Amino acid sequence: MNVAIVAEYNPFHNGHLYHINKTKELTRASNIIAVMSGNFVQRGEPAFADKVTRTKMALKNGVDMVIELPVEYATGSADLFAFGAVDILNKSGIVDALSFGSELGEITPFSDVADILNNEPAEFKRIMMSLLETGVSYPAARAGAIKEYLDIDTQFLNSPNNILALEYIRALKSTASSIWPYTVKRKGDYSDEELAGEFVSAAAIRKALLNGEDDRVVEYIPKSVADIIENLSYIPTIDDYSASLHYIMRSCPVNRLSEIEDVTEGLENRIHNNISDKKITELINIIKTKRYTYTKLQRAILHIILNLRKCDIDRRGVGYIRVLGFRKSKENLLAELTHKASVPVITNVKAAPGLLEKEIRATDLYYMIINGDIGREYTNPIVIED
Amino acid sequence: MNVAIVAEYNPFHNGHLYHINKTKELTRASNIIAVMSGNFVQRGEPAFADKVTRTKMALKNGVDMVIELPVEYATGSADLFAFGAVDILNKSGIVDALSFGSELGEITPFSDVADILNNEPAEFKRIMMSLLETGVSYPAARAGAIKEYLDIDTQFLNSPNNILALEYIRALKSTASSIWPYTVKRKGDYSDEELAGEFVSAAAIRKALLNGEDDRVVEYIPKSVADIIENLSYIPTIDDYSASLHYIMRSCPVNRLSEIEDVTEGLENRIHNNISDKKITELINIIKTKRYTYTKLQRAILHIILNLRKCDIDRRGVGYIRVLGFRKSKENLLAELTHKASVPVITNVKAAPGLLEKEIRATDLYYMIINGDIGREYTNPIVIED
Repeated sequence: MNVAIVAEYNPFHNGHLYHINKTKELTRASNIIAVMSGNFVQRGEPAFADKVTRTKMALKNGVDMVIELPVEYATGSADLFAFGAVDILNKSGIVDALSFGSELGEITPFSDVADILNNEPAEFKRIMMSLLETGVSYPAARAGAIKEYLDIDTQFLNSPNNILALEYIRALKSTASSIWPYTVKRKGDYSDEELAGEFVSAAAIRKALLNGEDDRVVEYIPKSVADIIENLSYIPTIDDYSASLHYIMRSCPVNRLSEIEDVTEGLENRIHNNISDKKITELINIIKTKRYTYTKLQRAILHIILNLRKCDIDRRGVGYIRVLGFRKSKENLLAELTHKASVPVITNVKAAPGLLEKEIRATDLYYMIINGDIGREYTNPIVIED
Repeated sequence: MNVAIVAEYNPFHNGHLYHINKTKELTRASNIIAVMSGNFVQRGEPAFADKVTRTKMALKNGVDMVIELPVEYATGSADLFAFGAVDILNKSGIVDALSFGSELGEITPFSDVADILNNEPAEFKRIMMSLLETGVSYPAARAGAIKEYLDIDTQFLNSPNNILALEYIRALKSTASSIWPYTVKRKGDYSDEELAGEFVSAAAIRKALLNGEDDRVVEYIPKSVADIIENLSYIPTIDDYSASLHYIMRSCPVNRLSEIEDVTEGLENRIHNNISDKKITELINIIKTKRYTYTKLQRAILHIILNLRKCDIDRRGVGYIRVLGFRKSKENLLAELTHKASVPVITNVKAAPGLLEKEIRATDLYYMIINGDIGREYTNPIVIED
């Protein structure tokens, strides 16, 4: 039984460890395969540590193999993120189940909602249209229509992990996947702000690390992770790319930015007219609205910086499977993957630079902040842990 | 009699004043029209002060009208620079003569050499080919062939102002211009390094200003210029664009840079392979060769930063005449220009943003270093001096 987990491990913490252990207990998995975002994450910012470092954290704490979620999916909106991950798992040919955390802790409600959203029955569409005509936003109209059509409380769809869970289920259904879903109920309330309780969120840990409060973090992360964090030289943030955004907004005809993924409805002009010499976080706080949330804007700005255009995202799915690392005792798993995958399996970027062009550029931009070298995507070795 | 001068005034100094006065004396000019580079100059770097400031310096010291040499010509190689300037003067319809400084101080030798280079007689080409076959560089073979064909000493063609003078004469001839050439012999040896003698070069003055030695500069510049310089907040250099170059080299597929003007023979790869986290001047010192001189490389790198592609340069010439400023008493000169020019005369960028797109972007990139605002090309007023 090979069970997959989709993760960012940004950083790996006790909640992740609990999820892995609970997954093994629930599914009696023989192997845990993580699909992990690379150097940039779904909030639209650089990961706190590079993907090699985060792969090590995973392999030291119960994961047997780490596969990379390519940057255009890893930094995408929730539906694109989930679709990319599920598509990779489908194409791997070796995954039996997908285990994800959720605040809800059961599959059926997600499944019911996913069916409606994927199939859009006429009555559901009619309700949604009439709600839209009252002037509410698209997400609000959608939630209202689900509530009325299914006659259920849709409050649960506001929680961050439930949102992703729904998207995994939708992706499994829309790709007619043979992979079974499992969900592990999240423990604690995972405040983004506070370091308190049994588990805390990765965001709270990042915040403490950025404030230099490493000591306060140790009780929420495995010892092996703390040891790795201790050796990090710098934690990059989106503001480290402010000068790059200034350059882009002054060198590039502004209308060309509408080609960029997630740049819609004249967002390029709002950025152009407000950026001046501001930091990116300052800019976002000025231009954010109810409709254009902080994260949505950060994601769009990251795509501008990474030059990820709408046409760069292949809606048919991922064209390769890139292994970031595996446990030495699980070499057979790599062999099985290579044998059964329906797309090329990449363990050495040098062998397939064309396929990974977007990844190579993203990695060069990641190391621009923390290290001078260009070409690290070629020279960083695959991670093999005992 | 309207006489033109092509200049950078970077900064305006006593040598420029001497040239203007000598030109008036020689030609009995009623009006002096300067064609001046804008915010970036022919050495491939930002001007020490913006074009509005440098226009003021010119108008306070004997120039009656300043016309902008568009950025793609102003930052071009000597032949493109001279062609752009002469083309503007031809299209102005109001210029009778062009006066330029030279170390030589007479027109005939330039004219003889220009005829050969423009017409390439068969015997000249034959000599040049045989010299190239011995393995010497293109410029050396060209110089050798001129020497042999004309039986003259071509040493004078190595001096910087003679090189430009030759290109002005070539451009006047190749465009069948009705404008007459005058040359003023340069006084002093204009060392690029030393502040000594009656006249010094603009390069030596910039160097002193960058070292904060404003006091040592005053005897080489008019008082009105010293007053303006005293109020400058910052003198930008090419190294202020190092972070921009780092971003470009990591975000852009390297082969796309071969589209950039002056990027030839795989130069993009040499930059990509050597830039790492270096400053631009450090990079140039590492990759320069006899063939790729410091200035040639700096120009290519500036074109990468300004995103000036080969296809952005119209070899047919300039499509508009942009007036940066004029003396109030010479309003009739502006009226005459508007009346007689064969291309649109622009005094207000807002009226023709499409024509000046490259200029708008270059100005935004100039002010990125010295001031936060985007859109200064629209808001900077035309300069009118008493």
